[in-house]
Amino acid sequence: MNIEQVIRIADLNARYADAIDAGRLEAWPDFFLDDGRYRITTAENVAQGLPLSIIYAASRAMMRDRVSALREANVYEDQRYRHVLGAPLIAADGGGGPRARTSFMVARIMRTGETVMFATGCYEDRVVLDGSGGARFAEKTVIIDSRRIDTLLAIPL
Amino acid sequence: MNIEQVIRIADLNARYADAIDAGRLEAWPDFFLDDGRYRITTAENVAQGLPLSIIYAASRAMMRDRVSALREANVYEDQRYRHVLGAPLIAADGGGGPRARTSFMVARIMRTGETVMFATGCYEDRVVLDGSGGARFAEKTVIIDSRRIDTLLAIPL
Amino acid sequence: MNIEQVIRIADLNARYADAIDAGRLEAWPDFFLDDGRYRITTAENVAQGLPLSIIYAASRAMMRDRVSALREANVYEDQRYRHVLGAPLIAADGGGGPRARTSFMVARIMRTGETVMFATGCYEDRVVLDGSGGARFAEKTVIIDSRRIDTLLAIPL
Repeated sequence: MNIEQVIRIADLNARYADAIDAGRLEAWPDFFLDDGRYRITTAENVAQGLPLSIIYAASRAMMRDRVSALREANVYEDQRYRHVLGAPLIAADGGGGPRARTSFMVARIMRTGETVMFATGCYEDRVVLDGSGGARFAEKTVIIDSRRIDTLLAIPL
Repeated sequence: MNIEQVIRIADLNARYADAIDAGRLEAWPDFFLDDGRYRITTAENVAQGLPLSIIYAASRAMMRDRVSALREANVYEDQRYRHVLGAPLIAADGGGGPRARTSFMVARIMRTGETVMFATGCYEDRVVLDGSGGARFAEKTVIIDSRRIDTLLAIPL
Repeated sequence: MNIEQVIRIADLNARYADAIDAGRLEAWPDFFLDDGRYRITTAENVAQGLPLSIIYAASRAMMRDRVSALREANVYEDQRYRHVLGAPLIAADGGGGPRARTSFMVARIMRTGETVMFATGCYEDRVVLDGSGGARFAEKTVIIDSRRIDTLLAIPL
């Protein structure tokens, strides 16, 4: 096992989650390569081999557009997320960077203070680690366990 | 602190949880030695020194029987688990492999999509790490925080 | 990235949480320096720059007093906590020890067995790591995501 790789990928995901949880949505696209891909789907879709996505962005530019839209719609202001992540499970690098699967739980905290378990699932990531300590997502697929899609799922997970 | 040991035990538990969460129950016994032991008990039983177990298996063969029974009863099909684990706390190896305690939360996601906090607790594990990178449980005790035992607790935690 | 630092700080927080979750409240002050500071506040207070604290202790002696009061009031006996923590995000040491931010979820398990998501948030810690493997908190700030303060918040988080 490559300990440094485990720690670096765990750190990348922890910083990613921290940006979202702190409401720093503008920082979200910067965790990806320029042509990085982001999508949210469900475990049911994956099991059935369906390519359906709830959210899909194929570049950092698309992610930035999404953040602008969220800010204009003022959706984010009324809620707060809190991610807790498991340890990354890393698969051999088949070219294009190591792949990692990481379990998550996300709680949603409403402005009233009410806290609920909002989403559980796993990240399936392809990561590019450069020689100078940098790390970005080439691909991040968020696979949600529940089939019931909350209509508030407008914010990146 | 032995960093490699921490990372390897965290990885073993993460792979273990991943197999259960992905519904790969048949892989569950393979995380144990042939004569590995698995049991589920409650924090209350432990505090009172009671040897009661909710589930007990004293070998991989017993675990395989359990999985077969679960598949026949078709219990697993209607739910999905999601584990998130903390960092392992490792005690000195008193012979027989290092011991580790790891906190967990497990959410249960029903077919309807409903998600609830199903179980919290900790694993108390005795682990055998071999020289070639392999790792298995010699013993895994799942200590559940709640005294209220869900009748659906038929699937390994 | 300093891998050893990441692992040691994750271990410190895991042991800290384990002591609380196991009800070993008397061990809680020992995770701090003699003049260590502990406080609980909300994300809303932090965002507004308010110095309000829900709980504040400026020394290990104050923490011990708090534990004695909790034991006398018998508050702890009726509930149990379970923490699950994320990976620590470590900032450069600006003197006085590294700073780390760590996400947490805490479930509360009542004597009846009922389990709820009690609190989510993050720790902002300043840690002192000594040369012999020891680690203590110089400061621990618990920032809770929810503005709704549970009146049972008498126990350290």
